[in-house]
Amino acid sequence: MEVRAAVAGASGYAGGEVLRLLAGHPEVEIGAVTAHSSAGQRLGGVQPHLVPLADRVLQDTSAEVLAGHDVVFLALPHGQSAAVAEQLGQDVLVVDMGADFRLQDAADWERFYGSPHAGTWPYGLPELPGARTALAGTRRIAVPGCYPTAVSLALVPAYAAALAEDEAVVVAASGTSGAGKAAKPHLLGSEVMGSMSPYGVGGGHRHTPEMIQNLSAAAGTRVGVSFTPTLAPMPRGILATCTAKARPGVTAAEVRAAYEKAYADEPFVHLLPEGQWPATASVYGSNAVHLQVAYDQDAHRIIAISAIDNLTKGTAGGAVQSMNIALGLPEATGLPMIGVAP
Amino acid sequence: MEVRAAVAGASGYAGGEVLRLLAGHPEVEIGAVTAHSSAGQRLGGVQPHLVPLADRVLQDTSAEVLAGHDVVFLALPHGQSAAVAEQLGQDVLVVDMGADFRLQDAADWERFYGSPHAGTWPYGLPELPGARTALAGTRRIAVPGCYPTAVSLALVPAYAAALAEDEAVVVAASGTSGAGKAAKPHLLGSEVMGSMSPYGVGGGHRHTPEMIQNLSAAAGTRVGVSFTPTLAPMPRGILATCTAKARPGVTAAEVRAAYEKAYADEPFVHLLPEGQWPATASVYGSNAVHLQVAYDQDAHRIIAISAIDNLTKGTAGGAVQSMNIALGLPEATGLPMIGVAP
Amino acid sequence: MEVRAAVAGASGYAGGEVLRLLAGHPEVEIGAVTAHSSAGQRLGGVQPHLVPLADRVLQDTSAEVLAGHDVVFLALPHGQSAAVAEQLGQDVLVVDMGADFRLQDAADWERFYGSPHAGTWPYGLPELPGARTALAGTRRIAVPGCYPTAVSLALVPAYAAALAEDEAVVVAASGTSGAGKAAKPHLLGSEVMGSMSPYGVGGGHRHTPEMIQNLSAAAGTRVGVSFTPTLAPMPRGILATCTAKARPGVTAAEVRAAYEKAYADEPFVHLLPEGQWPATASVYGSNAVHLQVAYDQDAHRIIAISAIDNLTKGTAGGAVQSMNIALGLPEATGLPMIGVAP
Amino acid sequence: MEVRAAVAGASGYAGGEVLRLLAGHPEVEIGAVTAHSSAGQRLGGVQPHLVPLADRVLQDTSAEVLAGHDVVFLALPHGQSAAVAEQLGQDVLVVDMGADFRLQDAADWERFYGSPHAGTWPYGLPELPGARTALAGTRRIAVPGCYPTAVSLALVPAYAAALAEDEAVVVAASGTSGAGKAAKPHLLGSEVMGSMSPYGVGGGHRHTPEMIQNLSAAAGTRVGVSFTPTLAPMPRGILATCTAKARPGVTAAEVRAAYEKAYADEPFVHLLPEGQWPATASVYGSNAVHLQVAYDQDAHRIIAISAIDNLTKGTAGGAVQSMNIALGLPEATGLPMIGVAP
Repeated sequence: MEVRAAVAGASGYAGGEVLRLLAGHPEVEIGAVTAHSSAGQRLGGVQPHLVPLADRVLQDTSAEVLAGHDVVFLALPHGQSAAVAEQLGQDVLVVDMGADFRLQDAADWERFYGSPHAGTWPYGLPELPGARTALAGTRRIAVPGCYPTAVSLALVPAYAAALAEDEAVVVAASGTSGAGKAAKPHLLGSEVMGSMSPYGVGGGHRHTPEMIQNLSAAAGTRVGVSFTPTLAPMPRGILATCTAKARPGVTAAEVRAAYEKAYADEPFVHLLPEGQWPATASVYGSNAVHLQVAYDQDAHRIIAISAIDNLTKGTAGGAVQSMNIALGLPEATGLPMIGVAP
Repeated sequence: MEVRAAVAGASGYAGGEVLRLLAGHPEVEIGAVTAHSSAGQRLGGVQPHLVPLADRVLQDTSAEVLAGHDVVFLALPHGQSAAVAEQLGQDVLVVDMGADFRLQDAADWERFYGSPHAGTWPYGLPELPGARTALAGTRRIAVPGCYPTAVSLALVPAYAAALAEDEAVVVAASGTSGAGKAAKPHLLGSEVMGSMSPYGVGGGHRHTPEMIQNLSAAAGTRVGVSFTPTLAPMPRGILATCTAKARPGVTAAEVRAAYEKAYADEPFVHLLPEGQWPATASVYGSNAVHLQVAYDQDAHRIIAISAIDNLTKGTAGGAVQSMNIALGLPEATGLPMIGVAP
Repeated sequence: MEVRAAVAGASGYAGGEVLRLLAGHPEVEIGAVTAHSSAGQRLGGVQPHLVPLADRVLQDTSAEVLAGHDVVFLALPHGQSAAVAEQLGQDVLVVDMGADFRLQDAADWERFYGSPHAGTWPYGLPELPGARTALAGTRRIAVPGCYPTAVSLALVPAYAAALAEDEAVVVAASGTSGAGKAAKPHLLGSEVMGSMSPYGVGGGHRHTPEMIQNLSAAAGTRVGVSFTPTLAPMPRGILATCTAKARPGVTAAEVRAAYEKAYADEPFVHLLPEGQWPATASVYGSNAVHLQVAYDQDAHRIIAISAIDNLTKGTAGGAVQSMNIALGLPEATGLPMIGVAP
Repeated sequence: MEVRAAVAGASGYAGGEVLRLLAGHPEVEIGAVTAHSSAGQRLGGVQPHLVPLADRVLQDTSAEVLAGHDVVFLALPHGQSAAVAEQLGQDVLVVDMGADFRLQDAADWERFYGSPHAGTWPYGLPELPGARTALAGTRRIAVPGCYPTAVSLALVPAYAAALAEDEAVVVAASGTSGAGKAAKPHLLGSEVMGSMSPYGVGGGHRHTPEMIQNLSAAAGTRVGVSFTPTLAPMPRGILATCTAKARPGVTAAEVRAAYEKAYADEPFVHLLPEGQWPATASVYGSNAVHLQVAYDQDAHRIIAISAIDNLTKGTAGGAVQSMNIALGLPEATGLPMIGVAP
């Protein structure tokens, strides 16, 4: 099989990462690469690490340019994917790395994004119950947010096994690439190096309803989430510390067993041996998820902690993994399982 | 007044920081500096930033060497402070930056530290209710742990004002200096740069009972704490994200008012204007505490987040602040309020 | 003495640093703080570390606002200082932290800055031969560039003692704050963390003629400089590796002796003991210069390496040190000698 | 072809990196993995990023364990490779990532390493003139040092084209992984983050004679090198700033032409377009070399700057590249050309 793929938004971090992965994907040929303000520039000037693609010229993002490919990856600002997708045929696989088609509830969308809801596409987190079935053969994929990926993989086993009460508290640290490539003063190296800081505190982060959606689906009842994201002094990586009160009578052994069962056959989720804790460095640049869970007998809480690369498994890797499923390719094709460490 | 101060454990990070502060303290003259394995070396070889003290020679830690000073700062491994303190007169102010005398409950001590309880000294967190009274004139001070400092300052106002339910969930990120200067592979720069990782997960961290002690005292009832510390890729700083369920009927305005009242007159605690969040970079090298609080109306939780420098306000700065009170000096003498930023 | 000082350009890194130092200066009262695009904002929103000044409001930079102070610090873009200074009386001490008045040669200025030369003011590097005499009592000071400060202090002793040939090769690494606070994509944390990169290669950096000016003055003949600056993944600090061919017959002992003699009485320059090398962390936030020199007998080169904090000794600290001299205050007043380490 | 490969010294950084690459190499099956003090441990406990190999148990390093493989990679301390290699058959390809067989001059070896010279093997820097011929079919490979790789690729074209005088000045910044995984206080994260520092100044670094060897071979005459290595606050990467006086009459165009010609057909060396400068982030985890060269007309110097990943192209990637040549495989097999950025 030879799949021709285009990437819209190729000048940003998500676009660059999907190009990095596609360049190493044995079944994919990279076609058009498009951008908005960088259109007309050499890709090598904007993404200097992408040497094999350095001489490609960024085209202006348009349906005309993107048409004629088997797969189109969209790494566009919120609200722009629907218009582009509509102009692409139903036989083109459109993989949206933005937020537009992630949420099922239109009211949630409108409250958090302030614009009309565009719809809901099959959700590109294959490890969720039922997700692979929905992804197989689809031509539209909504790639999850980076935080919801980390949090859902950490807590779904607890909720699916009815081990946890329906209120989760999540504090996650993200590398700065999660904030994108637009130059803002608070994202300058001088500001972020040597510093930890929170943002979107108090329930305002747009990824919160997506977490609630996934955990509630697993629990079969509404799960509330208190979510605090923090910015960490590193380019990549998410460490999500996810806790929930254990239901009465739950034991540490039951918790461990639920996680072992949930991820026994997952190619990318690595439940660490007991006593070993994840570090974001171990998954740097890879599609791997490192995960550990503990039960605090004093506080009666389950603490599940996951580490992912926000740009790989959290965005572009999850996108390629879902593409593989949609196209009937082996799910792990072209996806590194080993992080670049140290 | 001229206060002669000795520092035991001067080769480590806490010892180095207290020397940095004392060197700029207008009422203090630095006397003996002692160490264990580094004894006999020039201080300049071990702490190259302490230029004015570079030619001092580290002496072996002993009561003989430490005697004859007005104040003795102890930065020793757990369990070693009691023996030294006993040999110093009751007129010498002993400021213990270790854990030995922090906990009131002997059973807690023995469970978490595995050795007999040495006793309890006045607790060097002046911002706690009643603390200044206990510190005034004392000749023994137990400096709090760095995490308990950050967490207590963040949550005590909520518990003192009866705004929060009695189970707190805390996730805190610390710079690597909190782990000390002993060379361990997982603390190598190659391992920690670009990486976030948790440790002591599930209730095992020794600072947990100290947090419970402080929050329970404020609440007037036992407060449980789920505490997860994480190691962040920065040398200094703690960002503590502290949340607790709000009691029924509590409003955002009440929460804000409680914090404004609690810290209106505190010289080092800076409650930020609404909408601005703390960053550890802003307190780098200073004794300041930057703090913000929010109420999440969906999750019904109070989220209080504090930023401190773990070595300054979290250790050596808190020690000097408490010394000032004990000796009747103005509390802020010799303590920087402005962090080194960016 | 009570000195009233104003700071123009208080929203940037140089302006913030001079305010940090002035807030701790026992003889200075801070008056007006001004900015351009941030005018009207609270200083606490722009410089959150400056807590004691948080409620000051930034005024628009103008001679009217700046008049009526004893000292005015200018942290303005190149080319704007002359117009402001002209409107301030000759009795006002104007300390320019920009480049406008550093160069003596008008042709050099025009070639590197592309605008007419504004003139030359007494040069604020007190450690240079003759500099203190020129600074005493002056009402105009040109603060050196950060790189020329580090490089001149490293190489002037070799040239003043006629130990080195007249071609120096300098490679220096700077923290990102040297590039300022304007948000540019290549200065994002995501780009700079984990990365070293050069810029201004091949002789184009504007600090090159300033280095040549200082070294040539010391040598009594023109000294050429090959200068390559690099951007390092840290907020602050310059490490300048400066090498020059030794003149025939020069010995290692002569080199050492020249440096010991040059800096024996300098309050801020710390020539390290032989075998110990400087690290930028040791001078973090301080006005100290850590320096070491070696003689490579195979390559017949002198290698002098200096570490400074680019914002402190390299900019704002050098400015305050020179102000102290101009006003007849003890030179070290208000200037930390100990870095914040680790 | 199926190549069975063993790795001795698999617990360290070089060993871990070669395993990461071999795990993605389509022609290699990983056999024994050995260590010294970590023998008996699960690889997953020591190298947590190597998930597919997590359950492998480290064996004690011995010729018996290593025998029976087609290729043996040695990542051992200096001086230990010869004894192991002697016990392996002449038909086994031994790839030494240590220093033992790099130098041709026994006196140089003895001076810098203080032990008897073990010999000289074909040198694993395929981009050097004649290197591929020597590597084809060989069963013994000496992988170059990381700094000599970066420096030789930067300066050999200038010397091979007789453009430069015979004295080079090199200042290079390295990530901390170059110093290895042994826990030493000065390599702690607390010490290295936010800090630049030099080491091995004045001609003492052991990579100096290796650079001289390579540059002299290219020049056809002895080239002296003044080399100053510095430690940068990043885990990986080398940025080598290499300068040499241009010979009389040399023009910028000649310099550019020489480099374009030298690297026109090299798969891993990427000479950047004029005006664009390398950054270590762009080659993170890849075998790519990013390179730029300039001519400073004032200083009459050629400045060539290269960026490599010290663990990949600088060690394990160079090892695999050379293995591919020795075994007759396509040279780029299994080697990423795209760095993990940002």
